[in-house]
Amino acid sequence: MNSTIDLLKSHRSIRVFKDQPIAQETINELVEAGQAAATSSFIQACTVIQVNDPEKRQQLATMAGGQSYVETAPTFLVFCADMKRHQLACEMNDAQMQSGFTEQFITATVDCGLFAQNVAIAAESLDLGIVYIGGLRNKIADVSKLLDLPDLVYPVFGMCIGVPDQNPEVKPRLPLSVVLKQDSYDDTKDRERLADYDSHVKTYYQSRGSNLKETGWTDQISGMLVKEARPHMLPFLQERGFIKR
Amino acid sequence: MNSTIDLLKSHRSIRVFKDQPIAQETINELVEAGQAAATSSFIQACTVIQVNDPEKRQQLATMAGGQSYVETAPTFLVFCADMKRHQLACEMNDAQMQSGFTEQFITATVDCGLFAQNVAIAAESLDLGIVYIGGLRNKIADVSKLLDLPDLVYPVFGMCIGVPDQNPEVKPRLPLSVVLKQDSYDDTKDRERLADYDSHVKTYYQSRGSNLKETGWTDQISGMLVKEARPHMLPFLQERGFIKR
Repeated sequence: MNSTIDLLKSHRSIRVFKDQPIAQETINELVEAGQAAATSSFIQACTVIQVNDPEKRQQLATMAGGQSYVETAPTFLVFCADMKRHQLACEMNDAQMQSGFTEQFITATVDCGLFAQNVAIAAESLDLGIVYIGGLRNKIADVSKLLDLPDLVYPVFGMCIGVPDQNPEVKPRLPLSVVLKQDSYDDTKDRERLADYDSHVKTYYQSRGSNLKETGWTDQISGMLVKEARPHMLPFLQERGFIKR
Repeated sequence: MNSTIDLLKSHRSIRVFKDQPIAQETINELVEAGQAAATSSFIQACTVIQVNDPEKRQQLATMAGGQSYVETAPTFLVFCADMKRHQLACEMNDAQMQSGFTEQFITATVDCGLFAQNVAIAAESLDLGIVYIGGLRNKIADVSKLLDLPDLVYPVFGMCIGVPDQNPEVKPRLPLSVVLKQDSYDDTKDRERLADYDSHVKTYYQSRGSNLKETGWTDQISGMLVKEARPHMLPFLQERGFIKR
């Protein structure tokens, strides 16, 4: 429809980068584009830690489950949901912040999502490639300690950015009929739609350039969801002042 | 730096729309652009409910705290974090999903954020305007009932979309020095930076075209955070199968 929409629809994660640094001026520009995203009640609850220190990068790569590109990507950013800044704002106005509400956790987390997605698009518009690193949440306490994150701040995900040195295919998404519903939630036809989609995904995995797999979507998802999902998350977040009520 | 970044940096919420419908083909295109965003472990946990029914729109406008544009905007979408689809995927593979993990809540919520921000950018690239409607969470149980949302699905936010019939200013964001930190979280200078920023925000509110206010950022934030934040959220989400462990 237009070049921006073409850009959005051409996203794929990039994990192999050319050994070409990104100028700090460019990184600043990306983060400013992130800041321009909508923010719930002007709360601006996202803080970005740019990690340059090679030693810290190496540790983060390990913490993320051995994702070497966290260490080697030209730029690595950690997006943190941050309500500490708001505690400071309250202090500056002699006010007592009521913290720990799940609602605040949602707004801060969503703020990071919108912010980071703007950074991703801005980067891709400059022919850079990115990959989100949710794996930081594997070792969220260690990551928080390494980056000196205080209470009321948690690392939502990281992002590697750099000039792509690979050209992977775009992964086929769920059928629109499954994802977009009219006026109410009706999934009565979704079982057969997902079965169709499984065939598409299998074809994709078998025909793509590398890392061939024999799997559809539902089996991949079910294989993941029969296992525990980072069970340390809730106690960690509560210890840090989130989701207490 | 380029037209995409200019577009990102020119975002402001639009709440007044021309009486011009958006073609379904365009809405489909926007949602497909949303689907193209990164998704944690290919989980694709966002479902969009497009609300056309005028009666439902009116009720949603009321539930959102009397935001009339929810009723009158040409298009209104509700972005839902959806793990029900994954339960179905597990059933299709004779697997027992382990649900209720806070980690799953985070991935599904972040998925919605990235997805919706792509929809927002795609819309703005077509000269449409948007506003996010977090106010749906005021009455999250009523909204869920109205849209027949089942367990393991929750409405994260809505979005009004249409041709703008107003031209508000872009709101000044926090200083980059507050938001972007190097190698570790260090907020020792943030108090004075926020005080400076308060002055900027005051100037903005006093000079903008409409809805003049005498307020900075920290006092606005502290005024909001001394109050409870949607205390019904955690019990509601837990009842729906989220954040149980």
